[in-house]
Amino acid sequence: MTSSSMSRTSSPARMRSLVRGWRGGGRRVAFVPTMGALHEGHLSLIRRARRRADRVAVSIFVNPRQFDRAEDLERYPRDLGRDLRLCRLEKVDACFTPAAGALYPPGHRTEVRVTGLESVWEGASRPGHFAGVTLVVLKLLHIVEPDLVLLGQKDAQQAVILERMIRDLDLPVRVLRAPVVREPDGLAMSSRNVRLTEVQRRAAPVLHRALVRARRAAREGERSPARLLKRIRREIEAEPAVRLDYAAVVDADTLEPLRRMEGRVLIPVAAFLGRVRLIDNVQFRLP
Amino acid sequence: MTSSSMSRTSSPARMRSLVRGWRGGGRRVAFVPTMGALHEGHLSLIRRARRRADRVAVSIFVNPRQFDRAEDLERYPRDLGRDLRLCRLEKVDACFTPAAGALYPPGHRTEVRVTGLESVWEGASRPGHFAGVTLVVLKLLHIVEPDLVLLGQKDAQQAVILERMIRDLDLPVRVLRAPVVREPDGLAMSSRNVRLTEVQRRAAPVLHRALVRARRAAREGERSPARLLKRIRREIEAEPAVRLDYAAVVDADTLEPLRRMEGRVLIPVAAFLGRVRLIDNVQFRLP
Repeated sequence: MTSSSMSRTSSPARMRSLVRGWRGGGRRVAFVPTMGALHEGHLSLIRRARRRADRVAVSIFVNPRQFDRAEDLERYPRDLGRDLRLCRLEKVDACFTPAAGALYPPGHRTEVRVTGLESVWEGASRPGHFAGVTLVVLKLLHIVEPDLVLLGQKDAQQAVILERMIRDLDLPVRVLRAPVVREPDGLAMSSRNVRLTEVQRRAAPVLHRALVRARRAAREGERSPARLLKRIRREIEAEPAVRLDYAAVVDADTLEPLRRMEGRVLIPVAAFLGRVRLIDNVQFRLP
Repeated sequence: MTSSSMSRTSSPARMRSLVRGWRGGGRRVAFVPTMGALHEGHLSLIRRARRRADRVAVSIFVNPRQFDRAEDLERYPRDLGRDLRLCRLEKVDACFTPAAGALYPPGHRTEVRVTGLESVWEGASRPGHFAGVTLVVLKLLHIVEPDLVLLGQKDAQQAVILERMIRDLDLPVRVLRAPVVREPDGLAMSSRNVRLTEVQRRAAPVLHRALVRARRAAREGERSPARLLKRIRREIEAEPAVRLDYAAVVDADTLEPLRRMEGRVLIPVAAFLGRVRLIDNVQFRLP
């Protein structure tokens, strides 16, 4: 264990003044918002932040507003002690751990929506989810005021929505999107993976496998989104432990279904393994 | 005419960097958002801003999103040359005059709403109005990044909504609300007043007169909001040139109708004089 001078605060005012001090002294500040339960995916965001900035701030806040199912909120893994240890090991400079009551005091009424983008795919399966995400990230950006915020490609739709919000609202922050980090067998890192049974865990990489095969088929000339989707569905549904929620072939910016395989392609999937819902995606460019 | 070094820009990036330069040099910056057609009400906000800050920024932007009627947007008075002259005379340091296309480029999708507060009174009469106001003010605050923003009590509901938004979103800006400025006969200053005919102009002060009498009655012991409203309606409706849209007796923070006359009381009214819609209000505290 290294000794460390990481600041930790649950006070919005203290967090703001920390970052203002750094920026006033000419330091560039990068921010990684998280819900804790840190894994290699988060750590890769933190390391990228470190390479791009002089100071790294991380928030750990399990945002109740973005859970559409109470059960999912309850079961969301929490281990603040471990998360703080990991942040210290990664030489994070400040960790912001607000209480829900500090971010959502009684009388809170304001909502932020990215219309159109928030109601499809994950938004259709999880009503209200993205409204919760946009609200908390906007609040966190106002509190932390970083130069740069890092978003993970694992939550591709979330990244598209937040980038749109940041542009639409003229927020003075740059966005860096970082690639999905995977287990050796291809399963995307997720805080929910710990809830998989052994059988489910062995079945889970089918999502990535199906996506990679679809990307290869597209690159090798498959021009029909419908046929690609059929392949993906067939492959995932062949796995008895996995129940597909949705798969789609969409424009990576507008999230609208593609009619032809061209341009910036995003293929998001979501599936249930028992009661655990996992998402994954591939994104690539076609001529 | 004084000579002046007022900066004027329609570029969001240039505006942001101007203010950042000031604040980086330790200057306190106050911001007055306007739709132009400046009158004594605006000038009083600018003078207050000057007393509270080292630098004063004013925006002039007729925000299309907050007009519920195309006719009202078309008829909204515009005289940028005169507005800029007035700003120079008031020693405004920077005037931000963005184009609509710069604030709302194609693909803009983000909305901000202060639920509950935005759909009553003015919001009920002007669907979408406050969503347009919250959106543009949030964008302007992100561009200008002032220490302090000034809001006029003339638009009391707007001020309540914006203060709520600023608090709910943890925006790093203080709010100062400034009192209504009136013509000698009591008519609240408004950019719409120039559109009144002579007859309408003579009739218009009835709004303020009725409000002042209601406040006096409340202070002298009238305890029934219903009876107060009846008095206000009777007095305004006695004026043939004026058609009352609504009058209400509400809590000054929640905007909910009062059952008893107590606490922080707001009495907003709206009325049509021909095709011109005027609003006014009184706010006071009862034991």
